[in-house]
Amino acid sequence: MVIHIYNDILDEIKPSDTQRKNMLDFSNKLMDIITSYASSQGINITCHLVGSMAKKTSLVNKADIDIFMAFSLDCPPEDLKKYGLEFGRHAIETMNAKSQLRFASHPYITGLFDDYEVDFVPCYKISDASQLRSAVDRTILHTEYIQSHMSDSEADEVLLLKKFMSSVNTYGANYKVSGFSGYLCELLILRYKSFDNVIREAATNWSEGVEIDLENYGTCGNYSDPMIVIDPTDANRNVAAALTIDKFSEFIIAARNYLDNPSREYFSKHIINTSKDELSNAFIERGTSTYVLKCQLEHLPTDVIYPQINKTTNSLERVSRGYDFSVIGTRYYMDDNDVMYIIIEYETSSLSNIKIHNGPRIDDVKNSNNFKNKYPDSYIHKNRLQTIKNRKYSDVMCMLRSILKKENMSILKLGKNVKESLIDNYEIYSIHEFIKKEEDLDEVYLYLHPTYELSR
Amino acid sequence: MVIHIYNDILDEIKPSDTQRKNMLDFSNKLMDIITSYASSQGINITCHLVGSMAKKTSLVNKADIDIFMAFSLDCPPEDLKKYGLEFGRHAIETMNAKSQLRFASHPYITGLFDDYEVDFVPCYKISDASQLRSAVDRTILHTEYIQSHMSDSEADEVLLLKKFMSSVNTYGANYKVSGFSGYLCELLILRYKSFDNVIREAATNWSEGVEIDLENYGTCGNYSDPMIVIDPTDANRNVAAALTIDKFSEFIIAARNYLDNPSREYFSKHIINTSKDELSNAFIERGTSTYVLKCQLEHLPTDVIYPQINKTTNSLERVSRGYDFSVIGTRYYMDDNDVMYIIIEYETSSLSNIKIHNGPRIDDVKNSNNFKNKYPDSYIHKNRLQTIKNRKYSDVMCMLRSILKKENMSILKLGKNVKESLIDNYEIYSIHEFIKKEEDLDEVYLYLHPTYELSR
Repeated sequence: MVIHIYNDILDEIKPSDTQRKNMLDFSNKLMDIITSYASSQGINITCHLVGSMAKKTSLVNKADIDIFMAFSLDCPPEDLKKYGLEFGRHAIETMNAKSQLRFASHPYITGLFDDYEVDFVPCYKISDASQLRSAVDRTILHTEYIQSHMSDSEADEVLLLKKFMSSVNTYGANYKVSGFSGYLCELLILRYKSFDNVIREAATNWSEGVEIDLENYGTCGNYSDPMIVIDPTDANRNVAAALTIDKFSEFIIAARNYLDNPSREYFSKHIINTSKDELSNAFIERGTSTYVLKCQLEHLPTDVIYPQINKTTNSLERVSRGYDFSVIGTRYYMDDNDVMYIIIEYETSSLSNIKIHNGPRIDDVKNSNNFKNKYPDSYIHKNRLQTIKNRKYSDVMCMLRSILKKENMSILKLGKNVKESLIDNYEIYSIHEFIKKEEDLDEVYLYLHPTYELSR
Repeated sequence: MVIHIYNDILDEIKPSDTQRKNMLDFSNKLMDIITSYASSQGINITCHLVGSMAKKTSLVNKADIDIFMAFSLDCPPEDLKKYGLEFGRHAIETMNAKSQLRFASHPYITGLFDDYEVDFVPCYKISDASQLRSAVDRTILHTEYIQSHMSDSEADEVLLLKKFMSSVNTYGANYKVSGFSGYLCELLILRYKSFDNVIREAATNWSEGVEIDLENYGTCGNYSDPMIVIDPTDANRNVAAALTIDKFSEFIIAARNYLDNPSREYFSKHIINTSKDELSNAFIERGTSTYVLKCQLEHLPTDVIYPQINKTTNSLERVSRGYDFSVIGTRYYMDDNDVMYIIIEYETSSLSNIKIHNGPRIDDVKNSNNFKNKYPDSYIHKNRLQTIKNRKYSDVMCMLRSILKKENMSILKLGKNVKESLIDNYEIYSIHEFIKKEEDLDEVYLYLHPTYELSR
């Protein structure tokens, strides 16, 4: 592989020594402010710089700082929450910055400083996973494990891997992507040593259920996920649990594409270049019937709303199929203004008015008599009764409008928030109306070219 | 049940004593002519009146006479054929009637007399089924079995059963009907004693695989047909082998309908009363796309041509489904001029231009690389590749016209004779054109009301 491109890429994506020094100095200053303030309040905590910054695996411009305040295990949870917010706010105010309250498993406070965004997160000081009180408590263990096991050059390989994964859209454990987390990327490099090796292994040796167990805990057999990577700090956790089979597969395909053509282009986003005419013609050629459901949602965290949109899309597809409207494909996304879009492509927009409805076996006297009474026009097909029934819906748009009515909506499995927004208001466009009307059509392009991001 | 209607019905359907005596006298005369002529030629045969007439189970106006000439087992087959034709022709000429050559397993000769049609069939004189040389040899055994086991009143019950079966269109072992043979009706009466009992048993106790073994041979287990009736003259023959599951089911349903309403109407054909408008509107309401394939065939025996039409219809349905045109139903028939009609109803006449084509698992590196090379637009669906392929046909009429071209026809499984006729010429009509054009639309009505004949 062409190693020299990696140096060029690292020059672009790795924070400089000065940037890194400034950031560390700034973090240390904040941590000093907090520790002395806490001790002045008679509370004993230790502050930790955690996350990719601490592990030297943060990409330039994504350099947000995570400061964890570790309380002793005998501190009651209410106190931990209260002091966590108080100490963070104190550091932010001392530096004359703005603060913002955010939520993960507990509320935490974020400081919006000139050069950085800093999260101040309270957690418990644990020495191993058995003492875990909440998900954030692991973070310090993870940071320490990577710090103590990863060389600086391996950290650079992590940067390449993260950049590649971002560019092919497989990076991020959040529900929007359901891909590879930063920690998972780090463990892959610890396992395979270099970016090139990860690519080669993925391209040629990975298959569903691939196992990585750095500490030889022998617990892989407990999992049936697409990929099983045992957390070195917790024998009973699969770090890749959130990775979907689709993203796993996409990374494998991207890795194969890259091996075929190891171009620098794989380290930046694949720019989409399309036009309204091109898109509209593509749908005309397909001879299908495609619709877009558009709905304004309330503002909610990505990890709350994306699973609901996913559920809604799957449910629309399943219910459509139940009414015999065959679905070619779907794609969902949300824009920056919390507007949800669901693209759904049907084989045809209209069906016959009737369908065959199978009845009981003829030698089942009781049920076949009941069936014949219920359907006087029933007839014989081999050893069974059949009848012709009217379809509830022969037009796909009627079907969609009907199942989205408040009184019929219970047939769909929607998330709570999506459901409330759909009751308020939604629009359905034919894909052609939609293309005419909207400006940002990248997602429509990606619907038609779902592997566009995986190749260059 | 209302017994008195049966007497009325028998009055109509049973030949009178005079008719029967005339027929027996006439048959005996013919048999005398043949036996003395044969003996004058030095050939030793016995003549037998066989079939329903001999068994007193023939319906009035269906009183054709079957005379079997039984040769000794040491007569070579060529001689049997030759003498069979010669002796029959001699009897016909002696009586100044016309003769006609016909074919079953051998050729045989039919005499067209003023009052009767008489078949003269040569066969071997066998004493049990183990000596069987051809299918016709059984006939004498069957006739003798019924003559020696059935009372006159039971023969009347057979008449009722045959008449009922004819009226609901389940009578006849030929390939046009694939229903109950006359001999099977006789065995049913021997088993259940009366028409009413057959009806009651069928309606309430018959299920697929019902077994009747009058001579307790214990051979039912060798068969897996819808109905198993061991031939009393041959432990290794199922008399109901030609009965299809559909006709078996239809008789059961007709029997249940009759029990619900034991009307005289069940002993005559159910007259169809429809109009072009009614039929056309019914198809419009169904919102489907229905076509009729019409083709002039050459004149061939029913049992040769019907299996071919059946095969053709099934094949058209299977190939249509293979191209994703979903078939609601089919019906075929032939008119008196050997014109074949196949009605085929599709859910829709047009499909999208594209369809999903599934590829290999992604972890199957070799095949997934091949697939990706073959279909550069392939994409990921879970752990597999998929691609969008253009359909060969998106319009049903184009598909039909194309697969019926001589060069494409091999995709269809057609009988030899149907195939040759289709190559010459055929027409396809939309059901609405067809209804406008044709006069006899009973079969179209029966397509829409497939159980019409089973109820009154």
